[in-house]
Amino acid sequence: MTLLATTTNHQIRLARRPVGLPVRADWSFTAEPVSSPEPGGVVVKTLLLSLDPAMRGWMNEGKSYIAPVAIDEVMRAVGIGVVVASESPAFAVGDRVSGLLGVQEYAAFGARRIERGELVRIDLRAGTPTQWLNVLGAPGMTGYFGLMDVGQPKPSETVVVSGAAGAVGQTVGQLARIKGCRAVGIAGGPAKCKWVVDELGFDACIDYKAGPVKEGLKAHCPKGVDVYFDNVGGEILDAVLTRINRRARIIICGAISQYNSTEPIKGPANYLSLLVNRARMEGIVVFDYAERYPVAIAEMAGYLKDGTMKSREDVAVGIDTFPETLLRLFRGENFGKLVLQVAEG
Amino acid sequence: MTLLATTTNHQIRLARRPVGLPVRADWSFTAEPVSSPEPGGVVVKTLLLSLDPAMRGWMNEGKSYIAPVAIDEVMRAVGIGVVVASESPAFAVGDRVSGLLGVQEYAAFGARRIERGELVRIDLRAGTPTQWLNVLGAPGMTGYFGLMDVGQPKPSETVVVSGAAGAVGQTVGQLARIKGCRAVGIAGGPAKCKWVVDELGFDACIDYKAGPVKEGLKAHCPKGVDVYFDNVGGEILDAVLTRINRRARIIICGAISQYNSTEPIKGPANYLSLLVNRARMEGIVVFDYAERYPVAIAEMAGYLKDGTMKSREDVAVGIDTFPETLLRLFRGENFGKLVLQVAEG
Repeated sequence: MTLLATTTNHQIRLARRPVGLPVRADWSFTAEPVSSPEPGGVVVKTLLLSLDPAMRGWMNEGKSYIAPVAIDEVMRAVGIGVVVASESPAFAVGDRVSGLLGVQEYAAFGARRIERGELVRIDLRAGTPTQWLNVLGAPGMTGYFGLMDVGQPKPSETVVVSGAAGAVGQTVGQLARIKGCRAVGIAGGPAKCKWVVDELGFDACIDYKAGPVKEGLKAHCPKGVDVYFDNVGGEILDAVLTRINRRARIIICGAISQYNSTEPIKGPANYLSLLVNRARMEGIVVFDYAERYPVAIAEMAGYLKDGTMKSREDVAVGIDTFPETLLRLFRGENFGKLVLQVAEG
Repeated sequence: MTLLATTTNHQIRLARRPVGLPVRADWSFTAEPVSSPEPGGVVVKTLLLSLDPAMRGWMNEGKSYIAPVAIDEVMRAVGIGVVVASESPAFAVGDRVSGLLGVQEYAAFGARRIERGELVRIDLRAGTPTQWLNVLGAPGMTGYFGLMDVGQPKPSETVVVSGAAGAVGQTVGQLARIKGCRAVGIAGGPAKCKWVVDELGFDACIDYKAGPVKEGLKAHCPKGVDVYFDNVGGEILDAVLTRINRRARIIICGAISQYNSTEPIKGPANYLSLLVNRARMEGIVVFDYAERYPVAIAEMAGYLKDGTMKSREDVAVGIDTFPETLLRLFRGENFGKLVLQVAEG
């Protein structure tokens, strides 16, 4: 308790709604003392934060699948932390936990949030803390339920995923392989493409910076595309739409190419391919599957353990670097799941 | 036989691929003698032709759900006719039939096409010949299977349909009402809107020419949109995307607003609403449901008989008017299912 009272909690708050790419002036940097936990509550020290494309959407006003981050609110972020003070029978000091810690060094969870299951103990035998933000975390669950529930891939079908070297993409492609599909990634640059094929075992990877994606799809998807997991939107979505098979499924997971655009979003001009091919385009929000996370995590932990699934995280250090580190996502500079290390432990 | 040999078959063929709205010079007008049926075949005299938005797509080159009409080929069209000569045990002279007669006065069907079921005898007790091109024909089947199989409406859900006074739209809205849904149409002009509400019993109809569709949706879909049956694409599709509910289903049946555009097709800029709402957009091609037509036709014929479903056809007269009559579809000038009467009978 005494320790906490003399400790400072550095926080990063949303100062204003960004236009286009968020700049440093869109954030405010605050510091406040760490309070003792309320009865039934805990205080968590942040170790790692997950930086995700979805964060950009949370910064915008307006209706979405989740309320926007309010002005002057601590920026929303999923993280891994360690319980440093507990008045809750559910958590002991030293427990490693996962939850919406926010971009701050310490996060308090009251009894009600704990009852609602907003803080989850993680099992380090299943995966490392960074893997718990990747394959075993929200990106992994997004890939799992997006591919399996929305995409419903059948063995020998061709699954294409954009953002293939990113957090969701690496899960989708590897899982597609495990389920007996042909997995073709789309990623930016030869290093990512090589890694996706050589290390993750995708059947092929199309470098969208090297030439037309449509040509890559022709070369690497000789039987067309049955499932497309879209993380990027824009021209790549349009290119894939020209190559889909009858009854294809397109999972709309994100549209990172459009998030920082100050122009109106570019809708998929080739959407009538859905008609021609009797195909389907469907959105996924991972929270809908929360009740089934444990089953999926157990399955994914098994793949990590037996080596059929690999993971890569790209770890930046220091909470102060958050504004610039976040931008790496939108410039395609991250290589693997982007994680911000706030403290060691 | 003798009769046939001295009879002339006037035909309209595709002379060249149109750019934008088809003009008269895109067609050629031919005449040839009517041959006697080949062994096992029949000759059908065309009475009525169905004019459909889909025809515009058939005139374009390139991969679609059906091969394009070739240059100099008789224009493809579904029609109702009467058998005037038969060497087939399956059909007798005088039988009323439906099939791909083409834009011509007489159509020959060989034994193979008859075996494949390309010619179907129609039962005038189930509906009039024009109804057999409307509620009981391809538009009705498109509405039926698009709404029921792809849209999967549940009682008390809100179903919106564009092109509400058109052939597919009138079926969709009335069927939605029959299935216990709130049915809201979108149509052009007060006369169509009034008819859709007063005669067909839709709960409401939005006149897209009178003001923003978005405002109309706010007013008439207070609980949001659960199913949207899209015949038009473009701005109306985008407007509906802003009002869909969680797990909404959007049936992509057509995009008449885009068919004659010489600009690139406008993709739905608001497609990320699919993500936010975990919603689905899926194409329908009616031919996929051919095996189930008889069941659907029987159901629809029941609704026609007991008056729960009404139909309206807009009948133009004379095969020579085909080029201009077809354009009425793209100008929204037809009021009900557009039919071309080629001969009386």
